[in-house]
Amino acid sequence: MRVGFIGLGAMGQGMARNLVKAGHTVSVWNRTSERAEALARDGAIVAHSVAAACDEAPVVFTMVSDDGALIDVVSGTDDGPGIEESLASGGVHVSLSTISVDLSARLTAAHREAGQHFVAAPVFGRPDVADAGKLTIVAAGEDAAVAQAKPLLESMGQKVFVVGTEPEKANVVKLSGNFVIASMIETLGEAFALLRKSGVDPMQFLEIVNGNIFRSPVYENYGTLIAKGRFTPPGFRLPLGLKDVRLILAASDATATPMPVAAVIRDHLLSGVARGKSDLDWSALAQVVAEDAGLR
Amino acid sequence: MRVGFIGLGAMGQGMARNLVKAGHTVSVWNRTSERAEALARDGAIVAHSVAAACDEAPVVFTMVSDDGALIDVVSGTDDGPGIEESLASGGVHVSLSTISVDLSARLTAAHREAGQHFVAAPVFGRPDVADAGKLTIVAAGEDAAVAQAKPLLESMGQKVFVVGTEPEKANVVKLSGNFVIASMIETLGEAFALLRKSGVDPMQFLEIVNGNIFRSPVYENYGTLIAKGRFTPPGFRLPLGLKDVRLILAASDATATPMPVAAVIRDHLLSGVARGKSDLDWSALAQVVAEDAGLR
Amino acid sequence: MRVGFIGLGAMGQGMARNLVKAGHTVSVWNRTSERAEALARDGAIVAHSVAAACDEAPVVFTMVSDDGALIDVVSGTDDGPGIEESLASGGVHVSLSTISVDLSARLTAAHREAGQHFVAAPVFGRPDVADAGKLTIVAAGEDAAVAQAKPLLESMGQKVFVVGTEPEKANVVKLSGNFVIASMIETLGEAFALLRKSGVDPMQFLEIVNGNIFRSPVYENYGTLIAKGRFTPPGFRLPLGLKDVRLILAASDATATPMPVAAVIRDHLLSGVARGKSDLDWSALAQVVAEDAGLR
Amino acid sequence: MRVGFIGLGAMGQGMARNLVKAGHTVSVWNRTSERAEALARDGAIVAHSVAAACDEAPVVFTMVSDDGALIDVVSGTDDGPGIEESLASGGVHVSLSTISVDLSARLTAAHREAGQHFVAAPVFGRPDVADAGKLTIVAAGEDAAVAQAKPLLESMGQKVFVVGTEPEKANVVKLSGNFVIASMIETLGEAFALLRKSGVDPMQFLEIVNGNIFRSPVYENYGTLIAKGRFTPPGFRLPLGLKDVRLILAASDATATPMPVAAVIRDHLLSGVARGKSDLDWSALAQVVAEDAGLR
Repeated sequence: MRVGFIGLGAMGQGMARNLVKAGHTVSVWNRTSERAEALARDGAIVAHSVAAACDEAPVVFTMVSDDGALIDVVSGTDDGPGIEESLASGGVHVSLSTISVDLSARLTAAHREAGQHFVAAPVFGRPDVADAGKLTIVAAGEDAAVAQAKPLLESMGQKVFVVGTEPEKANVVKLSGNFVIASMIETLGEAFALLRKSGVDPMQFLEIVNGNIFRSPVYENYGTLIAKGRFTPPGFRLPLGLKDVRLILAASDATATPMPVAAVIRDHLLSGVARGKSDLDWSALAQVVAEDAGLR
Repeated sequence: MRVGFIGLGAMGQGMARNLVKAGHTVSVWNRTSERAEALARDGAIVAHSVAAACDEAPVVFTMVSDDGALIDVVSGTDDGPGIEESLASGGVHVSLSTISVDLSARLTAAHREAGQHFVAAPVFGRPDVADAGKLTIVAAGEDAAVAQAKPLLESMGQKVFVVGTEPEKANVVKLSGNFVIASMIETLGEAFALLRKSGVDPMQFLEIVNGNIFRSPVYENYGTLIAKGRFTPPGFRLPLGLKDVRLILAASDATATPMPVAAVIRDHLLSGVARGKSDLDWSALAQVVAEDAGLR
Repeated sequence: MRVGFIGLGAMGQGMARNLVKAGHTVSVWNRTSERAEALARDGAIVAHSVAAACDEAPVVFTMVSDDGALIDVVSGTDDGPGIEESLASGGVHVSLSTISVDLSARLTAAHREAGQHFVAAPVFGRPDVADAGKLTIVAAGEDAAVAQAKPLLESMGQKVFVVGTEPEKANVVKLSGNFVIASMIETLGEAFALLRKSGVDPMQFLEIVNGNIFRSPVYENYGTLIAKGRFTPPGFRLPLGLKDVRLILAASDATATPMPVAAVIRDHLLSGVARGKSDLDWSALAQVVAEDAGLR
Repeated sequence: MRVGFIGLGAMGQGMARNLVKAGHTVSVWNRTSERAEALARDGAIVAHSVAAACDEAPVVFTMVSDDGALIDVVSGTDDGPGIEESLASGGVHVSLSTISVDLSARLTAAHREAGQHFVAAPVFGRPDVADAGKLTIVAAGEDAAVAQAKPLLESMGQKVFVVGTEPEKANVVKLSGNFVIASMIETLGEAFALLRKSGVDPMQFLEIVNGNIFRSPVYENYGTLIAKGRFTPPGFRLPLGLKDVRLILAASDATATPMPVAAVIRDHLLSGVARGKSDLDWSALAQVVAEDAGLR
């Protein structure tokens, strides 16, 4: 099957490559073309515009950094037309990015108006998981469109969950999941600060509490990063974490759902930016918390 | 070995029984005597006072509800002398309760002055885990005293961790662990409220996010309770959860460690009390959060 | 002098009338025309479009409800061109509305590009103060443009402060002022809840603390509204208060300034919306706080 | 009339002196005696013990630093008996200190049991206001006891408010008042940080917003201290502010009243202690907020 793939960042590269490996004809486009060339060596076709990536493809995937980038790709820019104009009637746009609930709803309407279909399919997992094709993918959209996208998604993820026919529901699930992770980082940050000021080694605490009670790889991984202060190189930069928390708060606002813990995290990430931590991993949120306790 | 055991509540019963099963001569005392009688049928000796429970026992355990109850048991009341006066010189008092860091430090000094030893050994686990002898126990105290207590603790728990020679360190670990659990409840409460208001089933979210990312039995158990609204019968009543959060905030205050998430939880638990939820499980914290979002 | 005035809501009416009274030729436009007709009886000229209001006017004022409404008025809609297209080259657009810092900066650039000038001049005061011409006005913009606007602003306000040459600075001052008021409402809400639950009459507290310590008419007015529970008819509806808090948080985000009290207020106002209080005055924020304490 | 006065700190000195000036025979005691000697030069009688200060005095005042100090003075220490033992039957103990609601209730019961009366009469005002006899005093207690105390209180304060027959009500009013002031400091701190990061001078903001809207001397005074960064010499040290916030949160806990703004303030004051600001004025709370925004 011929598919388009737009956005070859740290995540997108591995995902597009897994589509190629699964035997699909993948026409790739990236804002900077070097990354597309690299993928060409693995068998992808280099498209020189968004329109070219959409050409003859019944399904086009996007994996970009934020709402603004996706709007450009869908609506087009001075450099050329976007997916809306380029994708054939009846075509399916599958958005893999972490975007706002609001944009997801607007793209659903825009594609519908253009006679196309929109599926939101945000993913959980870091670049190495994307490379390994083991992402957890949460999809939502009209049944037929999701049915068409699903086998393709399965070459990129080990699990594909369908959470409804309205695409934005998938985005809410993704954002809520990231919120739970962010809260875990904040919480471990507060607990570790208390422990350190009480003379207890956070690693020992982690071994006891996660090893016997929580037994979660997420606590294990982030807890170790925080306890050891390994915030660089960043797996996911702090301003990207802030971006996601912004999207969570926007969803909370739109649905009139108070989320005080999300607000605490927002303020600490803002403080992280203000204190010059923008090049650190977002788990440096815990470093902000430690500094507030006078540590380091 | 002869040991005393004071406090036969939901947790203490199973713990004392496991000491009996392990072959020890256990002299038990409880403020209300019916519970001691029940244990006698399993082979425990009923002590009719704190002093009697301490008699000839080189080690006495306490498992009571809060700081006030432990102070009464240690310092004595109008009904009779406490452990401090009754335990032989060189004896070891092992406190299994969740108490304040401050009281732990004060009891350490008080027992030292009385020529005795204090070991703090708070436990993680609910009553069924206590019955099964599978608690996770965190101990701290002077080396020799901990060495004496450890084999006994091993008949009550599947893992015994030693975190230092100052007893209060074990209490900080226990309180920090409970804080992490409380934060998880608050966080799931906020996430579930957002999901419900967005038309997504929290159980489906839990399956996706815990099933694939967190993979933690604690998220599984509490998440299911919250998603299904099963706050009664309470496994751990909301005011007890509030008590623990108070102890965390007291430790945070004493060490000058800001803990804003703990403060959010405190306010929501207080609101739970104000809204008449004191007979529900402490996970009803999530119900407070849902109501704040206009749900139910 | 001929001036245009766009937006004749509760605030705009009185302000436009005061311009008429000061002897200016005021060409007024409102989205619904009845309000313009009313003003015509006082001597204003009814304009039937934004373009007509701008016609021959070197200065045009806008007083609309939010960012979206101002964007429509400036950029135009399907109904006709906006100020950008209609105002003569060298003309001055004076924005009196409470809008975002970001929009203020964008309009500054847009008008500059169109050869026009933008002055932000948001106002403090409720409709009765606007009617009386006693508003406090905070202006910012290029010196010449502000100099041209100032005598006109002085017919609407008793005090006109100039805070710089970049228009958005005036918006930051306005938003920060509203934040201080919102915080006062939240704070009195918390204090009154504590007092009521302690058996003390909040009115007596207000008399003591404001009468002798704060001595502020704002505490007096809002404190009385809150203590007496007079949240209707609304002077400023709760969702409008929420809108302002959103703008504050957007400014806080853009400058990486953590503002935890603003976050607390946001969550309580969201909860107010979720609990059905959207038709009450924004001081019903204090009612949310009281309900969280189980009151009423 | 003969009265005792215990506690001659920065506040107590002026208050005792005003009692002397009003023609009373004032028997003064202070933990360190130099301060009593100083007052003797103004006509006070130096008492060499708490008991001596109570001798023949139907009314004894206390003005001490915190709960612990007042408990010592009332219950006695190794150095000698306290008020409870020393005050004649029917005597009145008037507590002017800022103490906890809980201690106020306990002292009420203790004095009642000893055949004495307890009046709580905490004061608003700084040392210079105490010297000038212009404090605002909030009293509560049994009618007869308050009636006896009132003329004496009037020589120390320009206004004496009676808020009920249960002494602790006066303490709740005092603590709530301090909470409102603390919240104002926090709020100005957040607003000033936003303004500074937006390039607006906080002093100009203060002039506009307080000069025209709030018109409060408290905003004027504290706002100027904060805008100019004058946190030393301290008028009221930061740890004392933290002590008061602790008492507010204890009252909030005891009445199940969530107070999230008080919690924010607590965390910032704790951070102030952790960052080494304990010798600054409590308005340095605003400096913590500024630092969190990366300022200075």
